Amino acid sequence: MAAYSPSGPLKPMQFQRRVLGPKDVAIQLHYCGVCHSDIHTVRGDWGPIQYPQIVGHELAGEVVAVGSSVSRFLVGSRVGVGTMVDSCRHCSECEAGHENYCLNGNTQAYGSKDRDGSITQGGYSTFVVVDEDFVIHIPDVIDLAEAGPLLCAGITVYSPLRRWGVSPGKKVAIIGLGGLGHLAVKFAKAMGAEVTVFTTSPEKTQDAKRFGAANVAINKDGADFSAFKHAFDFALDTVPYRHDLNRFVPLLKRDATYCRVGVGKTVDTVDVGQMSLVLYRNAIAGSNTGGIRETQDMVEFCALNHIKPEIEKIPMTGINEAWSRVVDKKARYRFVIELKG
Amino acid sequence: MAAYSPSGPLKPMQFQRRVLGPKDVAIQLHYCGVCHSDIHTVRGDWGPIQYPQIVGHELAGEVVAVGSSVSRFLVGSRVGVGTMVDSCRHCSECEAGHENYCLNGNTQAYGSKDRDGSITQGGYSTFVVVDEDFVIHIPDVIDLAEAGPLLCAGITVYSPLRRWGVSPGKKVAIIGLGGLGHLAVKFAKAMGAEVTVFTTSPEKTQDAKRFGAANVAINKDGADFSAFKHAFDFALDTVPYRHDLNRFVPLLKRDATYCRVGVGKTVDTVDVGQMSLVLYRNAIAGSNTGGIRETQDMVEFCALNHIKPEIEKIPMTGINEAWSRVVDKKARYRFVIELKG
Repeated sequence: MAAYSPSGPLKPMQFQRRVLGPKDVAIQLHYCGVCHSDIHTVRGDWGPIQYPQIVGHELAGEVVAVGSSVSRFLVGSRVGVGTMVDSCRHCSECEAGHENYCLNGNTQAYGSKDRDGSITQGGYSTFVVVDEDFVIHIPDVIDLAEAGPLLCAGITVYSPLRRWGVSPGKKVAIIGLGGLGHLAVKFAKAMGAEVTVFTTSPEKTQDAKRFGAANVAINKDGADFSAFKHAFDFALDTVPYRHDLNRFVPLLKRDATYCRVGVGKTVDTVDVGQMSLVLYRNAIAGSNTGGIRETQDMVEFCALNHIKPEIEKIPMTGINEAWSRVVDKKARYRFVIELKG
Repeated sequence: MAAYSPSGPLKPMQFQRRVLGPKDVAIQLHYCGVCHSDIHTVRGDWGPIQYPQIVGHELAGEVVAVGSSVSRFLVGSRVGVGTMVDSCRHCSECEAGHENYCLNGNTQAYGSKDRDGSITQGGYSTFVVVDEDFVIHIPDVIDLAEAGPLLCAGITVYSPLRRWGVSPGKKVAIIGLGGLGHLAVKFAKAMGAEVTVFTTSPEKTQDAKRFGAANVAINKDGADFSAFKHAFDFALDTVPYRHDLNRFVPLLKRDATYCRVGVGKTVDTVDVGQMSLVLYRNAIAGSNTGGIRETQDMVEFCALNHIKPEIEKIPMTGINEAWSRVVDKKARYRFVIELKG
């Protein structure tokens, strides 16, 4: 299912994946998660793109063919693919396992120029061919339908929670309880932190507690957050559009960081009062998915801690309606497209 | 010399300091440094103030009387006072030595409500009375004329350089080469880092190198900083007004922080593209002076490393002209008022 314009509905598209190279694996996709990034990309929020474009970067399926040099996978292996399908492999970031921060620019699962010059096409599709270095093992205890959302939503929140030392005794704020936020709550809870959720949707309160939140606060204009003044060691903002951050900075402890992983439009600025950052030596940061090793580690963490996303399966034909519900904050909490007929 | 309005010149004012309490020391001031904060405060950039107001928070002088319980100082002790003269003493920040981040609000050297309800008056003055816990020892090897600027400009840059681990092998950018910036260059160099200075004043290039910079780049619209792409482990921005930060974020290494210590107006926001923070997991931070123990440590660091500010002495009557030169970026690099006739 491809986008043919920034605003029109997705429609079917037939095309051929590349011929299997020595290091490639061919994957029959069973599922693909629906990420807000898919919508941002097609709508042009992050810059103009070429159409038709197939999006989707939360892929899960089964290996159906392997290239002659493939060492990590066999036909039948349960696998996933996230936001990246290649990187330069030789810069200091790639060598450190941070392919997501490749200094020469990595190849995204969709909308990137691939090594053969073509534009990559994503996971709203039945088959993909991907270099094995960018393929993730899915442990048997994780349902393939629940694997996809871990590979973008999951790693995107897991990586900053690790980077900023979330651990027992820490108090963590999670802002936004959607596809990313609900996994962030589960991760932070499993890491031992006390979690407070800030959501614009009061009806998500019980869910937040079920996912592991100790406190839930409703984020609306004029809300009084004074009970949480200087309360948090770390705040993770998963909101995928511009919103008022100034109400959250005073909730940070000295030296604490407020990290955003959602980006609305490319032109959005953080708009935080400089004075408020100075007052308690706070920082506003960003974080961008995670590396391949870290993604594999995150999947193992999920297996160990019985963490899985809350999903709603939809048929491929239901994608346009699903997108509307994502934009309207009606997803509970991740749509997953069924791709294997 | 007091301000009687936001825009008028400073004029003389006679007043009485408080009676010496048991923990107080009375200090005859020899010198007071001129800080851009003095000007911001009087101009109302950080909110309305009461007039008349005496500013100045880089005080250096000699103890002339001590209260009955004073234990750290004798008559004749060489001392300094910086931006704070009191704090709550019992919050977690005060107990950790971070009086500058006192959760109950500390008492600033000027423009703050003091414990007796009066508004504190600063160091453009001949005498002060200060609680000994907020008085700094000035080592004999440091000239009193050169001590004052360490106590605001110095600690304001020293504290974040320490907080963000500036040390041998690190590459550090210093943005702005004024009263704060020139000390930041000397500190970072003494800490073992390779320092690059970004200045809007080409004529400061030789000075920057003399202070210890390995590289100097001229910061102007359209400047090409691509030679420094992803070059820095830490950037310290000392510019005391709003300016374009987006040109600097791409110069940070992954995980590096861009810290501002200058604040123009209270309403200023950081205006950094959220996407650029996400791309390499960078952060925009603030930092606010330092605690009393850290300030004493900084003074000792200066003594050990022969670090002193570049100053120009002025008489009290020259203050209005000096302020104009500060605003016009003509200070080289810190004006110090001679207060002892």
